[in-house]
Amino acid sequence: MADFKIHDQLLLDAHCLGRFEFSHLLLHRNAAIPWFILVPETEVTDLFDLPDGLRETALSEASRVSKFIKRHLNHPKVNFAAIGNVVPQLHLHVVGRKPNDACWPAPVWGHLKESREYSRARIQEITTMLVEFYGLRPASGTDV
Amino acid sequence: MADFKIHDQLLLDAHCLGRFEFSHLLLHRNAAIPWFILVPETEVTDLFDLPDGLRETALSEASRVSKFIKRHLNHPKVNFAAIGNVVPQLHLHVVGRKPNDACWPAPVWGHLKESREYSRARIQEITTMLVEFYGLRPASGTDV
Repeated sequence: MADFKIHDQLLLDAHCLGRFEFSHLLLHRNAAIPWFILVPETEVTDLFDLPDGLRETALSEASRVSKFIKRHLNHPKVNFAAIGNVVPQLHLHVVGRKPNDACWPAPVWGHLKESREYSRARIQEITTMLVEFYGLRPASGTDV
Repeated sequence: MADFKIHDQLLLDAHCLGRFEFSHLLLHRNAAIPWFILVPETEVTDLFDLPDGLRETALSEASRVSKFIKRHLNHPKVNFAAIGNVVPQLHLHVVGRKPNDACWPAPVWGHLKESREYSRARIQEITTMLVEFYGLRPASGTDV
């Protein structure tokens, strides 16, 4: 989709790391919890309104992010959600969790009070690992 | 899995409606919002730790519930999540949403304050539609 644009609110909330085949990959600016957001290039707004094949592609891309979180960021648990009540553009949350993290055991949405920022170096490090091991294509002019 | 048991907390929170091929289907007791919960018969606790084929089966079953919510319960939006920070057994939330519902636009988890109960007749009606149109097998001794 040549004219596809990521929703302004998502760009305010998150850094663009790059893209997989179907989805752009964003990292929430709040570094208190490793919170990734996939934005599939589609005008469909609900996960289950995607054709089956595209839904599987989106889930497969989210699964790579889940593996990255568990293997490289040492979080044993991953929360996954497609909500979109505020930002209608389809976006998938893939969130690393562990006991005693900043809002354990509550889900992050509306419950994460602590806020920290990523350093530029850390964002670059995360992007590099995702490119090297998980097939991410880095964004040109990546917002890091 | 002959010895598979649905987690006690889920049984406290929800009515068992029946099962699909892979997942049991529960309906949250709070009727303020149509909130379904699928419990796949697996010991895996995270959605993305399922083998791809089983993940697709679980998502396909969740998709049927999403279609049911949109077509028969007249909610235009469906929220989907796999969280499991409190109840570790894998369970998938499929939640019908609409503007001005009981906690719009917040996600239901930790934000739904209003509480209402289903009548026995309404649970039977929902189960019957799911059996008739979406391939649900009703639970023997259904908790309705």
